[in-house]
Amino acid sequence: MPTLRIALAQVNTTVGDIAGNAASIRRWCRAAADAGAQLVAFPEMALTGYPIEDLVFRDSFVASSRSALSGLAADLATDGLGDLAVVLGYVDADGPAATSSDHTPGRGRRDASALLHGGRVAAKYFKHHLPNYGVFDEDRYFEPGERLTVVRFGGIDIALTVCEDIWQAGGPFSAARRAGAGLVLNINASPYELNKDDVRLPLVMRRAAEAGATVAYVNAVGAQDELVFDGDSMIVTAGGELLARAGQFTEELLIHDLSLPAADATPNRAEKTDAEPLPIVEQWIDDDMEVDRVVLDASPRPSHRDKRDGGVAERIVDEAEIWSALVLGLRDYVNKNGFRSVIFGLSGGIDSAVVATIAVDALGPSRVFAVSMPSSFSSAGSRDDAADLAKRTGIDFRVEPIQPMVDTFLANLSLSGLAVENLQARVRGVLLMALSNQEGHLVLTTGNKSELAVGYSTLYGDSVGGFNPIKDVLKTKVYRLARWRNTQGAPLIPTPIPESSIIKAPSAELHPGQKDSDTLPEYDVLDPIIRGYVDHDLGRAQLIEAGNDPALVDRVLRLVDLAEYKRRQSAPGPKISGKAFGRDRRLPITNRFREGV
Amino acid sequence: MPTLRIALAQVNTTVGDIAGNAASIRRWCRAAADAGAQLVAFPEMALTGYPIEDLVFRDSFVASSRSALSGLAADLATDGLGDLAVVLGYVDADGPAATSSDHTPGRGRRDASALLHGGRVAAKYFKHHLPNYGVFDEDRYFEPGERLTVVRFGGIDIALTVCEDIWQAGGPFSAARRAGAGLVLNINASPYELNKDDVRLPLVMRRAAEAGATVAYVNAVGAQDELVFDGDSMIVTAGGELLARAGQFTEELLIHDLSLPAADATPNRAEKTDAEPLPIVEQWIDDDMEVDRVVLDASPRPSHRDKRDGGVAERIVDEAEIWSALVLGLRDYVNKNGFRSVIFGLSGGIDSAVVATIAVDALGPSRVFAVSMPSSFSSAGSRDDAADLAKRTGIDFRVEPIQPMVDTFLANLSLSGLAVENLQARVRGVLLMALSNQEGHLVLTTGNKSELAVGYSTLYGDSVGGFNPIKDVLKTKVYRLARWRNTQGAPLIPTPIPESSIIKAPSAELHPGQKDSDTLPEYDVLDPIIRGYVDHDLGRAQLIEAGNDPALVDRVLRLVDLAEYKRRQSAPGPKISGKAFGRDRRLPITNRFREGV
Repeated sequence: MPTLRIALAQVNTTVGDIAGNAASIRRWCRAAADAGAQLVAFPEMALTGYPIEDLVFRDSFVASSRSALSGLAADLATDGLGDLAVVLGYVDADGPAATSSDHTPGRGRRDASALLHGGRVAAKYFKHHLPNYGVFDEDRYFEPGERLTVVRFGGIDIALTVCEDIWQAGGPFSAARRAGAGLVLNINASPYELNKDDVRLPLVMRRAAEAGATVAYVNAVGAQDELVFDGDSMIVTAGGELLARAGQFTEELLIHDLSLPAADATPNRAEKTDAEPLPIVEQWIDDDMEVDRVVLDASPRPSHRDKRDGGVAERIVDEAEIWSALVLGLRDYVNKNGFRSVIFGLSGGIDSAVVATIAVDALGPSRVFAVSMPSSFSSAGSRDDAADLAKRTGIDFRVEPIQPMVDTFLANLSLSGLAVENLQARVRGVLLMALSNQEGHLVLTTGNKSELAVGYSTLYGDSVGGFNPIKDVLKTKVYRLARWRNTQGAPLIPTPIPESSIIKAPSAELHPGQKDSDTLPEYDVLDPIIRGYVDHDLGRAQLIEAGNDPALVDRVLRLVDLAEYKRRQSAPGPKISGKAFGRDRRLPITNRFREGV
Repeated sequence: MPTLRIALAQVNTTVGDIAGNAASIRRWCRAAADAGAQLVAFPEMALTGYPIEDLVFRDSFVASSRSALSGLAADLATDGLGDLAVVLGYVDADGPAATSSDHTPGRGRRDASALLHGGRVAAKYFKHHLPNYGVFDEDRYFEPGERLTVVRFGGIDIALTVCEDIWQAGGPFSAARRAGAGLVLNINASPYELNKDDVRLPLVMRRAAEAGATVAYVNAVGAQDELVFDGDSMIVTAGGELLARAGQFTEELLIHDLSLPAADATPNRAEKTDAEPLPIVEQWIDDDMEVDRVVLDASPRPSHRDKRDGGVAERIVDEAEIWSALVLGLRDYVNKNGFRSVIFGLSGGIDSAVVATIAVDALGPSRVFAVSMPSSFSSAGSRDDAADLAKRTGIDFRVEPIQPMVDTFLANLSLSGLAVENLQARVRGVLLMALSNQEGHLVLTTGNKSELAVGYSTLYGDSVGGFNPIKDVLKTKVYRLARWRNTQGAPLIPTPIPESSIIKAPSAELHPGQKDSDTLPEYDVLDPIIRGYVDHDLGRAQLIEAGNDPALVDRVLRLVDLAEYKRRQSAPGPKISGKAFGRDRRLPITNRFREGV
């Protein structure tokens, strides 16, 4: 059987930075070649970044992607890498493109994979299955491909596929079996959510069995606005053996030597595989997909003699996975948008303590600025906890009392009750924004998912900020993350979060003796209702059936519905759950539907 | 030829208020019957409101829609209206429904039309063509229908279709011709944008020719978050004759007597029509759509003897159209969300003057509260203009100077330059929000589309507010609207806007002698660049080719790109253009693409 040294380039590129991404890909190609790889595969849309959203409607953007692709092929040949096969994602267009206001706006735009070889674009494939659920709107953007592309390279038939293609039974993987492919490349930009890695491996195994071929799955790493890509690239045989698997949340070149069936000996892989195929859980449609076959005339570059095994990276615990996603989400938002530093209110409570620690892990303490903004209702304990955390982590810390400004407003306006509470939060917001304008920091906001769900926050007050690292983290999970992080040692700063921030009762401290539990149920009772209603679209009856208190269900559902207008103006933050607020969940503000009424 | 008295019920329903909508539909059915109508048609999703967005994923919502539909059929029979044929839109589900996190979330959910008769749901049709462009995400929500439904009623074969079906050649209209339909009902929730009414009539004419049948097009009226539905219902014959047309932006029952070919005499309408078909500009696919035929056994209710002609409403000028859309957009947002009143900063400038006037026209002066918030940089002229407008319109007006609060911030923080300018805007924001909290008003924000495009605003400052009536109105259009509105007489308040607000040079008045033109190009130069870049996705080269100054194009494009983070946190406002900021235009915040670099 012919062998192939493959490199899966699990890399971090930036939306819109086409020249920068091309330069980065070129460097990774050099590294892959130096390691003796004969083929290197990059993620979906690696050249343009992903997702490009409505940029796809700008002809200038698509033209830039296409010309950068040809340029990259030529540059690689100049680098002496013309005999390296390079597979990568980019945006293409064929035929006349529709505009965004047409009734078929995606027409002519393609989510494409190209194989570069010999200084040119040797083969192309257009993604078949376009996700249009959750955070995805690909029916809006692209026309689906209908043909399979199989490239013969080094005596092996290699089928190209893109991302969602692997989530659907039938289609390209089934066609790859009929076409006799020995290897299927699947390039991805698959966003992180908790436990998605547990779903991926069995998925790749099923599809490898369906294709009757080894599948090489490469995923992007890095963050883009609300999405975090976690990597987790892998290679799985038709028989379901996991040959190699990369880690999560770090750039990596996963290099592995594959022995694959010779192309001419495989008219129908289904009949020839030695391995016992896995039971197929889905039916696939055995349609007649047309196949574009490309035969590369040159041989692959010689590989090294040593045997390379990519190895299987160890799985990490849930808290580590989420923490890494939040750190990467913040770091990439800050760096890709050109901010030097971040600033936020550090109250001594758990939410801002966790955000501060995420910021330190993401950016290092020298780029992190915290402000304690005490009022007359702030406890000494909270103020001490804030100062303590700053000392433990080495971040910049200052105290800016808000009472003079609050008093001036109160002297000029006649306010009472909630208006006074909100006023304090808004004075803090003005203060943070003033420091941001004056000193150039990105403001972070620190509201957790439980607060966002029920609207327990002040619009333009504690909600001010350009990014919210814990937007998709329920309060009970914020506590779990804090405890877990405090157990981590070097190279991280050990025990950053004061124990008293973790154990004291949560409070907004906007009136004397206030506790969250005055207004809200305990978070271990609240969070399951939020998870059911928001993440799983359960109705009132189902939530009560699941054991939640009926009166509480009614109250929480009403709060969640009424807070939609606040969420619509909230800062972005990294998605870590099955359904995050933002693009992932689209509800009307004007909505009179009341569950069970 | 048999005759049919048809009523097109161009009505305003509310998203989620299923019981309220059913009660309203019942009242309109009574009115239609009283006018002798034998068939009455309501808009798409009239029972649930439109668009319901992710509410579709909640089983309890879909179940509520389905049971309300059966209940309505029974109630109509109780009302003695069992012999009235009632066509209306609702959300249905058939088969097991997928959840939102599945890879096929819309599976099993239907954007449906039902025909009620004899106390039951006599026929159903599922929308074929699902729009997934612009503001629409229907591939996310629904499974497309594949069958045609033809109902024989009063000796006439009537085909059912829904909204986007009429925007696509082929499909149900073509099938209706083959099925020999004499009338095609098309029920809509088609959002307003400028000049859409000019597109609709030729569209309906083309489709009537394609169907070889009379088409009755009924559209919703009213507003839902960022969308305004303008009505403009109409009836057009196969030969292209416009028989009747409703007005825009008002509820209306358009009643018209139709003479239609008898069902049994029309095996193939294509061969039998007397009228000369219009030239068909699109090709349609002559597929073999299966047809569900329903024959209603009872006769239609007797109609009156008099001849009813719905008439053709006169078209209104562009400014009147936009103004009506803005007024309806604000009124419905306020009323459907249960607000009693609105409050906003009245600076004496043109934007807040126009917003104040829209609010007066939408809600009446007694529900409108304006606040002048002068600083030391506010000119006497501006302050007088604000007071003058308040006097002309009769709205509540107060003066709250901001200097004491600004001074306290400046005494406690070391700020300079832009930070001081933004501070003033943010103190105003805190002030407005405090009054809103204290007195219960909805805060309006008054930034026009030109400002939003280039980011000429202070986040959490002048941008605070739950709704922005002029969000989608370019500055040059704000001026045109002001001049036009000042020419309108009773029943509106005449000449509400002081001439000096219209003629003076625009200024944010945040530092001495400041003018918008210090920072921005003149609006008549700026707005065409924004329109090209934002509304039409033109790139740098195309904008320069169109005659815009290259250096200016570069500057404006950069400003628009950099302001994306502000827009992401901006208040909703009514869409009136081909592409509004909001759901209509989805761009990444993190985006390093620079045109022409």
